[in-house]
Amino acid sequence: MHNLDPLRDVTAGEVVAPYLHARAADFLRGLRIHGESGSDSAGAEEAARTLRAAARRISGTLHTFRPLLDTAWADQLRTELAWLSGTLALEQAYTSRLVRLVDALSRLSSTAGPVPAARGGSGTGPGTGTGSGAAAGAGAGAGAGAGAGLTVGAARAGALLERQLTLARTRAHSAALQALGSARFHAVADSVALLASDVPLGPAGASPAMEVVDAPAAVAERRLLESVAALPLTRAAHPYNADALALATGESQDAPWHRTRHLLRLHRYAAEVLHTGGEPDPVLYESARALDRHRDAAEAASAAAAAARTPRIAPATAYALGVLHADQRHEVEAARFAFQHAWRRATAPVP
Amino acid sequence: MHNLDPLRDVTAGEVVAPYLHARAADFLRGLRIHGESGSDSAGAEEAARTLRAAARRISGTLHTFRPLLDTAWADQLRTELAWLSGTLALEQAYTSRLVRLVDALSRLSSTAGPVPAARGGSGTGPGTGTGSGAAAGAGAGAGAGAGAGLTVGAARAGALLERQLTLARTRAHSAALQALGSARFHAVADSVALLASDVPLGPAGASPAMEVVDAPAAVAERRLLESVAALPLTRAAHPYNADALALATGESQDAPWHRTRHLLRLHRYAAEVLHTGGEPDPVLYESARALDRHRDAAEAASAAAAAARTPRIAPATAYALGVLHADQRHEVEAARFAFQHAWRRATAPVP
Repeated sequence: MHNLDPLRDVTAGEVVAPYLHARAADFLRGLRIHGESGSDSAGAEEAARTLRAAARRISGTLHTFRPLLDTAWADQLRTELAWLSGTLALEQAYTSRLVRLVDALSRLSSTAGPVPAARGGSGTGPGTGTGSGAAAGAGAGAGAGAGAGLTVGAARAGALLERQLTLARTRAHSAALQALGSARFHAVADSVALLASDVPLGPAGASPAMEVVDAPAAVAERRLLESVAALPLTRAAHPYNADALALATGESQDAPWHRTRHLLRLHRYAAEVLHTGGEPDPVLYESARALDRHRDAAEAASAAAAAARTPRIAPATAYALGVLHADQRHEVEAARFAFQHAWRRATAPVP
Repeated sequence: MHNLDPLRDVTAGEVVAPYLHARAADFLRGLRIHGESGSDSAGAEEAARTLRAAARRISGTLHTFRPLLDTAWADQLRTELAWLSGTLALEQAYTSRLVRLVDALSRLSSTAGPVPAARGGSGTGPGTGTGSGAAAGAGAGAGAGAGAGLTVGAARAGALLERQLTLARTRAHSAALQALGSARFHAVADSVALLASDVPLGPAGASPAMEVVDAPAAVAERRLLESVAALPLTRAAHPYNADALALATGESQDAPWHRTRHLLRLHRYAAEVLHTGGEPDPVLYESARALDRHRDAAEAASAAAAAARTPRIAPATAYALGVLHADQRHEVEAARFAFQHAWRRATAPVP
């Protein structure tokens, strides 16, 4: 899955270290952007994004190539980076969750016909159709009624979600600022600064790369393949199977997909380490995007369900939140379909 | 689309009349079953089913082959048969709508995992999966919560729908009984009794079948093909396009599909008339079933939306009805997908 040339006549440490140096440099750049951003929110966002991307890659590399490193140091830094990226991720997560839910509500209650862009579909049906007597008449009539009812509830549901998620985002924002000002963060920054020039290797770090560097990457790949093999891909390839819509159980079945998303990320980072400068695999990227969408839709659905448990909401609001919840679970199912499609292409023999 | 052999050396009347005689005999048999059923509900159902099937076929034949018949008589009887089958159809429609909605609610709120039979899918995913950290944990937790919340609301929503649809069904039942006892019905029965032995033909009825009997059937087929051509089949072939989920507009877009369902039925009856004793086309049958499912899901969704507009319902009930509404619209989209699939097979060149 990667070419071996860069591994000739070098030690394992000489393969892993340059990657960690580069990501550490990215991290320090993010730190500088943060320092310069001040009250500029765009700058602050870029800083957080840069810090998170670097932290994820460093931590993933420490995890996958642990056998080559000073394990005590690696485990300790990995814990701290997990804390940091987790803290920095929340604000962005709440923001995009709100955007996703508000977009879905406007699509669901829109009277302007389906939006082709809504789910990347192309083309739409005829906006009007000649009637087909009672059934169609009733359907259209009730539809208009449902639409009207939904428009009222959708506005209230949108306002409720906006209140709840904006509050959560504000809390996450202050938590992130607090973290970036903490002694704990400065300790992480110091370790990463060292990492930019010096990687604490273990004994195996000095062995020839060709002997020891493949094994950890192979483990990461095997874990990914095992995790994918455990997914119900045949079922997911059957459109409209409605698995994800079994609300009481469907959501507990998200875990294997979330786990696969995590392992796919580790695999991608390991590939980055091994063919430095190599092209990222577009199909793996597509599979990863499908699993990101799966995660986002699942969390958005949970947020809609949580909002519906707010005491004393109007029935119209609860109704719209129910529609929204089912819609986002439908998105979860669509993301599973998209993943199995991308993955089949990734693993299909090239024609 | 049909073989011409039965048309050699006979008049148009001699082709259409036997079919009408046979359907009229079915109608009279249904009438006998009704007379004998008394308080036996199974018998009453069979009677209604038989009467409706015969009435639909007679009325469809009078419509399609009108040019060969005594048009004044045909139009008048067709109006009466439309009234009758419409009246007899309602009770069954409310019954199956309630069954569909209650089944969907139990599937949605089930804690027993997805039911493979639920939408004809096969195989299910692993019921459990090893966790993937915070995201999955949160998802599963919120899922359980959503499940619990839904279970409460689903029970109430089910009770509400049961009340509303049972009341509607009871009214439809008495309306049907009243209709079957009315002078208007006896007049229809008398005309159909005559039809069992004698079909009032127009001038063209005496012409050679090969010259005049094809045209009306061809018109029915052309109307069907034009209606299907106007459907957004490419869009429907794109799974999870979410068209049917644009609730405010999606339902007004059902009409062309309902209309196609009606025209497909007329086409099937015309085919029955022309190759008497011939095999029904299994793929056309499958397409028709998909459009029946489309109609049933669309009307079930409207019923859920209507129930959600009941004053003073609990938010949990409204929430479950919202989930149910979106779920049935998801079924509408699935039925459109199934139709385009079946239709593509119907029209694909045989390999």
